[in-house]
Amino acid sequence: MAENKAVAYKEPGKVEVIDIDYPTFELKDGPGVNPANVGRKVPHGVILKTVTTNICGSDQHMVRGRTTAPPDLVLGHEITGEVVETGPDVEFLKVGDLVSVPFNIACGRCRNCKERKTGICLNVNPDRPGSAYGYVDMGGWVGGQANYVLVPYADFNCLKFPDKDQALEKIMDLTMLSDIFPTGFHGAVTAGVGVGSTVYVAGAGPVGLAAATGALLLGAAVVIVGDMNADRLKQAASFGCETVDLTKGSPGDQIEQILGEPLVDCGIDAVGFEAKGHGAGAKEAPATVLNDLMDITAAGGALGIPGLYVTGDPGGIDEAAKKGSLSLSLGTGWAKSLSFTTGQCPVMKYNRGLMMAILHDRVSIGKNVNAKAITLEDAPRGYAEFDQGAATKYVLNPNGYIKN
Amino acid sequence: MAENKAVAYKEPGKVEVIDIDYPTFELKDGPGVNPANVGRKVPHGVILKTVTTNICGSDQHMVRGRTTAPPDLVLGHEITGEVVETGPDVEFLKVGDLVSVPFNIACGRCRNCKERKTGICLNVNPDRPGSAYGYVDMGGWVGGQANYVLVPYADFNCLKFPDKDQALEKIMDLTMLSDIFPTGFHGAVTAGVGVGSTVYVAGAGPVGLAAATGALLLGAAVVIVGDMNADRLKQAASFGCETVDLTKGSPGDQIEQILGEPLVDCGIDAVGFEAKGHGAGAKEAPATVLNDLMDITAAGGALGIPGLYVTGDPGGIDEAAKKGSLSLSLGTGWAKSLSFTTGQCPVMKYNRGLMMAILHDRVSIGKNVNAKAITLEDAPRGYAEFDQGAATKYVLNPNGYIKN
Amino acid sequence: MAENKAVAYKEPGKVEVIDIDYPTFELKDGPGVNPANVGRKVPHGVILKTVTTNICGSDQHMVRGRTTAPPDLVLGHEITGEVVETGPDVEFLKVGDLVSVPFNIACGRCRNCKERKTGICLNVNPDRPGSAYGYVDMGGWVGGQANYVLVPYADFNCLKFPDKDQALEKIMDLTMLSDIFPTGFHGAVTAGVGVGSTVYVAGAGPVGLAAATGALLLGAAVVIVGDMNADRLKQAASFGCETVDLTKGSPGDQIEQILGEPLVDCGIDAVGFEAKGHGAGAKEAPATVLNDLMDITAAGGALGIPGLYVTGDPGGIDEAAKKGSLSLSLGTGWAKSLSFTTGQCPVMKYNRGLMMAILHDRVSIGKNVNAKAITLEDAPRGYAEFDQGAATKYVLNPNGYIKN
Amino acid sequence: MAENKAVAYKEPGKVEVIDIDYPTFELKDGPGVNPANVGRKVPHGVILKTVTTNICGSDQHMVRGRTTAPPDLVLGHEITGEVVETGPDVEFLKVGDLVSVPFNIACGRCRNCKERKTGICLNVNPDRPGSAYGYVDMGGWVGGQANYVLVPYADFNCLKFPDKDQALEKIMDLTMLSDIFPTGFHGAVTAGVGVGSTVYVAGAGPVGLAAATGALLLGAAVVIVGDMNADRLKQAASFGCETVDLTKGSPGDQIEQILGEPLVDCGIDAVGFEAKGHGAGAKEAPATVLNDLMDITAAGGALGIPGLYVTGDPGGIDEAAKKGSLSLSLGTGWAKSLSFTTGQCPVMKYNRGLMMAILHDRVSIGKNVNAKAITLEDAPRGYAEFDQGAATKYVLNPNGYIKN
Repeated sequence: MAENKAVAYKEPGKVEVIDIDYPTFELKDGPGVNPANVGRKVPHGVILKTVTTNICGSDQHMVRGRTTAPPDLVLGHEITGEVVETGPDVEFLKVGDLVSVPFNIACGRCRNCKERKTGICLNVNPDRPGSAYGYVDMGGWVGGQANYVLVPYADFNCLKFPDKDQALEKIMDLTMLSDIFPTGFHGAVTAGVGVGSTVYVAGAGPVGLAAATGALLLGAAVVIVGDMNADRLKQAASFGCETVDLTKGSPGDQIEQILGEPLVDCGIDAVGFEAKGHGAGAKEAPATVLNDLMDITAAGGALGIPGLYVTGDPGGIDEAAKKGSLSLSLGTGWAKSLSFTTGQCPVMKYNRGLMMAILHDRVSIGKNVNAKAITLEDAPRGYAEFDQGAATKYVLNPNGYIKN
Repeated sequence: MAENKAVAYKEPGKVEVIDIDYPTFELKDGPGVNPANVGRKVPHGVILKTVTTNICGSDQHMVRGRTTAPPDLVLGHEITGEVVETGPDVEFLKVGDLVSVPFNIACGRCRNCKERKTGICLNVNPDRPGSAYGYVDMGGWVGGQANYVLVPYADFNCLKFPDKDQALEKIMDLTMLSDIFPTGFHGAVTAGVGVGSTVYVAGAGPVGLAAATGALLLGAAVVIVGDMNADRLKQAASFGCETVDLTKGSPGDQIEQILGEPLVDCGIDAVGFEAKGHGAGAKEAPATVLNDLMDITAAGGALGIPGLYVTGDPGGIDEAAKKGSLSLSLGTGWAKSLSFTTGQCPVMKYNRGLMMAILHDRVSIGKNVNAKAITLEDAPRGYAEFDQGAATKYVLNPNGYIKN
Repeated sequence: MAENKAVAYKEPGKVEVIDIDYPTFELKDGPGVNPANVGRKVPHGVILKTVTTNICGSDQHMVRGRTTAPPDLVLGHEITGEVVETGPDVEFLKVGDLVSVPFNIACGRCRNCKERKTGICLNVNPDRPGSAYGYVDMGGWVGGQANYVLVPYADFNCLKFPDKDQALEKIMDLTMLSDIFPTGFHGAVTAGVGVGSTVYVAGAGPVGLAAATGALLLGAAVVIVGDMNADRLKQAASFGCETVDLTKGSPGDQIEQILGEPLVDCGIDAVGFEAKGHGAGAKEAPATVLNDLMDITAAGGALGIPGLYVTGDPGGIDEAAKKGSLSLSLGTGWAKSLSFTTGQCPVMKYNRGLMMAILHDRVSIGKNVNAKAITLEDAPRGYAEFDQGAATKYVLNPNGYIKN
Repeated sequence: MAENKAVAYKEPGKVEVIDIDYPTFELKDGPGVNPANVGRKVPHGVILKTVTTNICGSDQHMVRGRTTAPPDLVLGHEITGEVVETGPDVEFLKVGDLVSVPFNIACGRCRNCKERKTGICLNVNPDRPGSAYGYVDMGGWVGGQANYVLVPYADFNCLKFPDKDQALEKIMDLTMLSDIFPTGFHGAVTAGVGVGSTVYVAGAGPVGLAAATGALLLGAAVVIVGDMNADRLKQAASFGCETVDLTKGSPGDQIEQILGEPLVDCGIDAVGFEAKGHGAGAKEAPATVLNDLMDITAAGGALGIPGLYVTGDPGGIDEAAKKGSLSLSLGTGWAKSLSFTTGQCPVMKYNRGLMMAILHDRVSIGKNVNAKAITLEDAPRGYAEFDQGAATKYVLNPNGYIKN
């Protein structure tokens, strides 16, 4: 059995590379594993040797101590890997296959999975619908920022790449299929982006950049990205987006300068509950993004909300925030007949099409989010730099598949 | 020129029947008319002799003094009438036609109208997208609780009944096509109601009952209606709905007793910003309904929100409410991947189909909402009784078309 | 191991009850089994003790000798049963569960299944996408008109009834969930039926009656059913349909008498390739139904085509028909901007919602199609009577679950 | 009143530039004008000075004598123009506005227009739903290959360009908004093209190239265009399409060489009823394209059919073709659960979004279809060259707006 190193959360502000057990076809007890899931058999699983596994902005919520994640929770829900073992119930995957794994764990057998709502599978998380690898309160499935990882319901969950060599060549793009590319794309889709749309994306982190990329791929006429981080805005501009610098104030005026009116067709929230207000030195203000979007989205528009909102936030700015309540100007949205779509992206709905677009050179998501490969050992540095606002998507390379 | 009596708002708590001018093909100055609309030519209009015109819950917001409506504003946006004059640009309507008029005024020529979003027409209200007859801040189009009323863009706006005699026979049903039946139906549609759905409707007023009727027409398996008013709940039960008595507490437990789980597929808010909390003697609490619906709607569900939310409410319970801010547990909705649809119902999207269902005896909306015809002179009494919670939809009969 | 009797095709015009092996978790060689499927392991399967299994019109194509079905092919793709054994990979079904089985066999793991297109699963039929139990050229999965039957990918395929006693009470309705109710409903959905639609259903056999039932459940204003068989038309009239007697000629004139115009919004073909012309004594004319539907469907309408069309028909009336070519007046359809949806119904998309509608007494599909339970031994008589045009849906009761 | 020259059909194979009356706000009698339309008042119309007006493949059906078009019928349904006069009912257009005119004439007031089905307006063509300028059996609205043209229901029909100078700069792209760009795009949309799709477009004429352009704009991974004309295929390759040379045989094998399987997700018919068989020297065979598409579209796919099919074709190859009957292998499509969408593109559904994509440099439709401006006097030469297969889209420039 091979050695298995993994990135684990230790305490607020700190992650470490630790040794963990090599996976078997069973979910064993460990940090963050739901008692009802302990001992669960996984004959339908595969064990993957990790090809790539990315650091995600939603990992940072845990690392910053904004959740109840326990020490030694193994992180990592953005996983691409090579099949090294298959459970007895696996029928359509073989050892050697290269696959992308949606961050949502889904059984493929419940009502929601049958309805393509794999983000809220009813059978994988005893607490509530929906699950993910390496995430607090999501059932306890071990994270994939490791050398090896177990993927349950593998025939259903895994997206196999048609050609292994081609896949390794494009791995810095394909690695984004496990989460941020579909997540950003879902934001664009649910915001109603279509050919000719004008779009505002709040947030130029990786998900925001992925949403902007997705909007362009869907044929948007103009994509405007707003943030306070100059480097990230520069990154957005690098692939054809217009930008709004929120240190200068609310987005409406700057949008008007770009479009001739302070309104867009479609609004995307790629920030979530750790939002800040506007202007230089703005403080955390969790409803800012949603209230902004209601202001600047034209009547009849839609808001896609891939940014995470939580039911409890120990680090919230006030009592309301601590229990996940937001002060929303819903009347503004109502007067405009806006619609709102929230929640985890059901990755499986989009990953195959996005893979095709990557394989046929129609989109360069890796370049757009400034993907950068680092070793597993360097993960703590990656977490730190990302937290400080680096305009970089860190891709861990635990087994050396990525050569340079 | 005929005499024209109309119901006008006078002051908080008071409406009166007053004399107003017989309409011409021009929007003249008057109470609540937007200056930019004064003198607007309406060659595309028809003058209707009112057959029926209903009192609506959203009129009550004005009458209760919860808006900035000026004295002598003529009320009434639920209009069915007979064409008595046609403007020179009217091509497809003739004198004598009986028509239903969507409460949303729409030009039929702007981007939104072309996209079927007639609730947010760009050309009829100088203040913002969307308009309605007899309503504050909606451009100033004169209300239809009168003997005669002007309907602009009549070829586009009017739904002609195919047979006049048949229409008069079913007038207590057809009169609901101008607003509440499509509005409730839109709530059901946007809540994702389909064949086999379980549905919770918050509010058993006329819109709530119409939403429940719409949900049943769409094939819902179970429709549950919640309210604090025993008469209105009885009305809901009269046509096959289950009921939840909110004086006994929040809806979850009672839903569980009905369905075996405290969850429904689809949630409809037919209450809006004047919502109350739960339990006997509960006070106004504007976010109650939406927070309830997020609690009791299953993951993957949708919320249809035909209930009105405003941008400013002089009578709001606190500073936040006065500017239309609600404290929403959005994290609850996000964790469940809920979607939300707000805004005026675009009546034209639905009225023709619903008319067909009425004409072919597939639905009895008049009976379900307990429609009751009264004279124009009795309108003040109708307003008062409705405000006190009568389980009745009041239909004004200004010209005696309805015989009894 | 229990005795297992089954209905088998013997030769054109003849079925017989024969003894077959009790199923195991493997697909063994036998009449009509695709060589590539022989020996296939089915650890994901369940063995059902059949509660009901219905005779279907598409079985008749085989029995009439219009296909290449081999002798001793066990028939039956409409299956409801009780779980008596579960394979090692089955996780969410237990012995004793009562389930409905979609006639489409689907793996739940391929691209098409993930996209809800379970009628064209890529992994169950070596010949081409899509499969069914007991059907020629569909992979060789053994039919369910038997005491026991194997259902593969059971966690995915089976729809479990929430309450066993309730289910047995409503079994004559629920038994229609395996095929004809969803199939007819799919015809209605793909024909664009919505609230207020006018609908024409070609064919008053069980699928036509199910389509009519489905159209009514979707809120259609008027449903017109056409056939040449007076008993079947009477059956359609029994639950509120209008009828057209095709022995009197083409449907347009009769539709005009009903609706005032010779046009409907939505057309459904519940007949397929064994269609006849019009008028008394009309002969087979395979394009009749589709050409009729193009004539009588209004511009902008849609045609749902659940009726089966084949790629080869040994009994076809001419060379074109023998290879499945139809002479279609496509120009008529094009001028009207019609759309057409063909193919097997993906049962899983609809069965849960339709089950809810049945369990909550919103629809009486068993009564509408005149369901009649007979013993397995009586199956040959059922086939014969059905072929002669009985206005009856025959439900086999192989294990005596249905008491009378 | 200005002089008005126009391109008219004279006899099979011949068009001529003739003098016609300057338009007024009335539809006067003339070649091809439906008697019921003679004298129709058009107060809602504008008179345009033509900026551009393109020669269309569907004009060629008339010019080749494949229709009953009368001599002196003025051609031209692809119109972009400057408003020079407005009728009394026009409210939102002003003299000087530059507008694109959808080829479908639509009233904006009937049921179909309200449902966005402007290709089958009920009020503009006394013969049947749907109309167009300068086309046989379409009501008699005078064609726009002229200096001046009348556009009815102008507020509804015209798409105004936001900036006149910018529009004139991009006029060779914007001129495609009146027909072929939306028409091709509609083909792609109705074929189900989305991000990552593989697409086959039958026909590399202007509509085929526009469909390919539209498919790419929608995010298709691979677009394959098939034709027998080497120049046209070269044109398709110029903007990133793969190509299939049909002189070498049916498309399946060549598609397999490109994609690794002989199947695409989406099929588009941009040819219509004048289709030819395959191989060098292939003859007309009207069902070829549709039968091909059923062969090479994967199960679960869709066919978009913007190519014209007619109800009568005097030049048809046999009796069936003369009355518009096609011998279709529908069984092939049925086994694959294919869907089919036919009919005129409802241009208004798409033109605004496509305009935005053009104005913001997201697509170069003019270049992709090889647009070439010629004078009105040169129209006969343009018709001839286009008929001989020039890989060129001819744009008439009747009033010298296009400078070179």
